[in-house]
Amino acid sequence: MSLVAASFQASSESAIDPACRLGEAPLHETVAERGVLRCTLALRHAGVRDVAIRWELCGPAHAPLLIVAGGISATRHVAANEADASEGWWQSQASFLRRHRVLAIDWLCDGDGLDAPIDSADQADAIAAVLDALHLSKARAFVGASYGAMVGLQFAARHPRRLESLVAISGAHRPHPWASALRSVQRKIVELGELQCDDGHGLALARQLAMLSYRTPKEFAERFNAPVSLEGERAVCPAESYLEACGQRALTRFDATAYRRLSESIDLHRVEPEAVCVPLSVIAIDSDQLVPREDLAELSVRAPDAWLQVIASRYGHDAFLKETAAIAAALTAALDA
Amino acid sequence: MSLVAASFQASSESAIDPACRLGEAPLHETVAERGVLRCTLALRHAGVRDVAIRWELCGPAHAPLLIVAGGISATRHVAANEADASEGWWQSQASFLRRHRVLAIDWLCDGDGLDAPIDSADQADAIAAVLDALHLSKARAFVGASYGAMVGLQFAARHPRRLESLVAISGAHRPHPWASALRSVQRKIVELGELQCDDGHGLALARQLAMLSYRTPKEFAERFNAPVSLEGERAVCPAESYLEACGQRALTRFDATAYRRLSESIDLHRVEPEAVCVPLSVIAIDSDQLVPREDLAELSVRAPDAWLQVIASRYGHDAFLKETAAIAAALTAALDA
Repeated sequence: MSLVAASFQASSESAIDPACRLGEAPLHETVAERGVLRCTLALRHAGVRDVAIRWELCGPAHAPLLIVAGGISATRHVAANEADASEGWWQSQASFLRRHRVLAIDWLCDGDGLDAPIDSADQADAIAAVLDALHLSKARAFVGASYGAMVGLQFAARHPRRLESLVAISGAHRPHPWASALRSVQRKIVELGELQCDDGHGLALARQLAMLSYRTPKEFAERFNAPVSLEGERAVCPAESYLEACGQRALTRFDATAYRRLSESIDLHRVEPEAVCVPLSVIAIDSDQLVPREDLAELSVRAPDAWLQVIASRYGHDAFLKETAAIAAALTAALDA
Repeated sequence: MSLVAASFQASSESAIDPACRLGEAPLHETVAERGVLRCTLALRHAGVRDVAIRWELCGPAHAPLLIVAGGISATRHVAANEADASEGWWQSQASFLRRHRVLAIDWLCDGDGLDAPIDSADQADAIAAVLDALHLSKARAFVGASYGAMVGLQFAARHPRRLESLVAISGAHRPHPWASALRSVQRKIVELGELQCDDGHGLALARQLAMLSYRTPKEFAERFNAPVSLEGERAVCPAESYLEACGQRALTRFDATAYRRLSESIDLHRVEPEAVCVPLSVIAIDSDQLVPREDLAELSVRAPDAWLQVIASRYGHDAFLKETAAIAAALTAALDA
């Protein structure tokens, strides 16, 4: 446990409804609270650092607590709630989430001023620090998807008494070497943009490439089957405007530093499956190019208490965001197991 | 037929052995000749242009003539010969090729000063112009791999009386939409480098990305399974030095214009399989990410006289360069069929 010191601050953005503050009984069935925990963490690669961990806690106090974590573009805002009516990154699972109390954080290095190599273990420790500060001793489950699943595996290995079970969707005990190589190219695109003093250009282009790995050739063949056209003297593929829109959207979400550091963090991740001793439910997508089902099968076999569900999808790695019904069913099965 | 005018010039680099010049009986079993054909072609997108087509013809005059064409990085130098002892791009098939007379060209737009949208149909017409100039009426077969297979399909559709059969390895009647999108990102990386006035930087990085699509996750998992390391403050993936070497090698092969135009040409390619009326032998690689076997199966089904062989390989799209024995066997079967 790398938590050196923690001081809980109810920030100005903290409680929406004073009656719903920590330690008091909720007035409503669903309540939401936000805050920033300023504390000191011993980071795996970057040493002891003061950090500011932005968290959001949503749902009635008596509901089973879930720690929820998504991909590198996910935030603490998982779904719309009383504190923030805007859609969350996992809005598609709002029905499932509504039956729980949900805790989530913004990733370390994501717009918090930290620019250092960050490990999935650091993110896990940050979540543990928030649990401490909120006096939440144990979660019913950690539900992680993509990078969030990697963080969940670290959390289970480092803080096994803080959770009853782990659900890992499309995230394994190590990055796949081909996927790591693809992310290294993405980071070099960001760096090429930085050289150009045009961070946004590089970042948007890196995100376009990332999208090609989040989805599948099959989906592209169905959506973008028109012939390539010539515009002036330049060939334009039918998927280009979609990819460019994805790239532009990333600019509203990330700065170049956050993107590079979180991308790097996926590649630095490595945990021994044997060290994940809580009951583990692994969910794999058959078409995932980044996290092949073979790697998730290996995780399931090597972890002491694990089982594997495989979902068929055309959406590849992004299926956790797109296959609403299948993911909800798999989550329910995982938590009922 | 878009050949407007052709004039054959035996350039200074043409015949190595005067006795082996066109129309004379060869002294040796294997002879080789090079030249540059300057002619005018009506290009599909770029209009009527004067072009310089660099060709190489190798093998005894009585041997069956093969037109051989490879990927966008292939050249007219297919294998080592008396004219040029350096290894060719298909040196691995030298044993198979030795039994034939082999004609190949350098692609239009590849270092010939042409900077315009180029179509696979233009390359096919360039090859037909060379056949005319060399008074070669008909080839035993056109053997094309990757982009060369696309050009072969165009050649068969446009010049069916110039060949007895076509062998298309890992190249289909259209680019796959996902692969086109990936190439569009590569071209944008090249453009980002050009903005930076550092063409080599962008080109090398684009080539790194291309390599990830030429090979497979399976091969990367076997070769680059070591953990990602931190060098200073930066994560370095085990595949990075390999990819960087591939990128640097591309700089000795391409300039940015050639790379962009030939990449674009793959995406502009489209031919109706029904228009390919010569006997067609299609060779697919089961692990090819760029040209999925499903697309080659569709080509085989729709073309009037076609059959399909599928090769299992860990090398994906690059299998035509790497699976020496399996490709040789498939080529022999195709030509014997």
